[in-house]
Amino acid sequence: MNSPNPNSPQPDPTSVPPAVVHRLSLYLRELRHRIADGNETTSSSQLGRRLGFTDAQVRKDLAHFGQFGHPGIGYRCNELVDAIRKILGTDREWRVALVGVGNLGRALLGYRGFYQQGFRLAAAFDADPEKVGTKIEGVEIFAIEDLAEVMSTHKIELGLVAVPASEAQAVTDQLVAAGVGGIVNFAPVTVTVPEGVSKVGVDLARELEQVTFAVANRQREQPET
Amino acid sequence: MNSPNPNSPQPDPTSVPPAVVHRLSLYLRELRHRIADGNETTSSSQLGRRLGFTDAQVRKDLAHFGQFGHPGIGYRCNELVDAIRKILGTDREWRVALVGVGNLGRALLGYRGFYQQGFRLAAAFDADPEKVGTKIEGVEIFAIEDLAEVMSTHKIELGLVAVPASEAQAVTDQLVAAGVGGIVNFAPVTVTVPEGVSKVGVDLARELEQVTFAVANRQREQPET
Repeated sequence: MNSPNPNSPQPDPTSVPPAVVHRLSLYLRELRHRIADGNETTSSSQLGRRLGFTDAQVRKDLAHFGQFGHPGIGYRCNELVDAIRKILGTDREWRVALVGVGNLGRALLGYRGFYQQGFRLAAAFDADPEKVGTKIEGVEIFAIEDLAEVMSTHKIELGLVAVPASEAQAVTDQLVAAGVGGIVNFAPVTVTVPEGVSKVGVDLARELEQVTFAVANRQREQPET
Repeated sequence: MNSPNPNSPQPDPTSVPPAVVHRLSLYLRELRHRIADGNETTSSSQLGRRLGFTDAQVRKDLAHFGQFGHPGIGYRCNELVDAIRKILGTDREWRVALVGVGNLGRALLGYRGFYQQGFRLAAAFDADPEKVGTKIEGVEIFAIEDLAEVMSTHKIELGLVAVPASEAQAVTDQLVAAGVGGIVNFAPVTVTVPEGVSKVGVDLARELEQVTFAVANRQREQPET
């Protein structure tokens, strides 16, 4: 019985703030650390502590999806891992294609975090004929012209866009036309997708801005002497 | 007069939700697109439209930091860009060091988005003696043993951690000991920093989970026939 409350309604995903989904991913990783450290159960405060969240935040986030704690026990780690994976949709393998095999694309092909979370990079695409037909990190590189056919043959559902900004929208359109359910865009530009297709934009400089915001504010409070 | 309301108090950065700071970065990029397209002014709804945010959301986010609109005009694009850069702390150059020159590190060294937002990669570090002394994308690679000295000589304030998960905490500790103000961690593991140092963790698989969450929920609603 991995689903402690099978009667709780599935949430409308559009009603759950993206930040909550983001935190579920963090809880999942923290639970795996705790399991690796030999813990069978955990609490909201333990789960939140290393991540810097309060126990109330953890409980509120999980409450969007059901009741996962057990009186006198807390959370059973494996049970909560299974529940979160089910919520996130990563209780099964997802076949993913990468478009753009430059430096960033190579890094993505070798990124172990994808495999750890159940993502399988099944094909990559590049415009450079020199790269087409080769394999990087065990993944075959195809010509972009063959995108629709390869996506269909390999039953690929998600796309990673790692091309220059100027090509990002065109590549996104091709992935959408090929029937992709969602894309993650690494190009530093906003792309649009039609309704019914999901997208997340990753802009690595944005992460740095989160840090400069905090550092700059500290410097304003306590000017260096 | 780039600061329309100089009397508004500087916010306590710990009281502004990280998600708001994240959206400021998005507004900044959207404003630059609008300027590049020849627009001098914009509105909350224009600013939010391509990003998928309501005008109320845009107004609420900006209201954390002051009053930026002008009656009958809306926002002056250049003025709002300057204001947001000041809030984010990116109204000046930040000197950044990279630790770990593998595939991901190389991609980060070549990532144009950093330069566009005012980040200057001033030095990189790697444990591999073969890489030390070479330059990649114009950035010199130093030995990790020399980290403290190079960070001081080059006046580096921020660090990017792109080493394997097993080394991420040790490298973070070295950067903190060298006086770094904040780090962005790309290793798929949580690292801890002392109070007074900022950190953001980038886990590329987490971005994919945002997408699978949405796609899996759509599939539950509308099972394929």
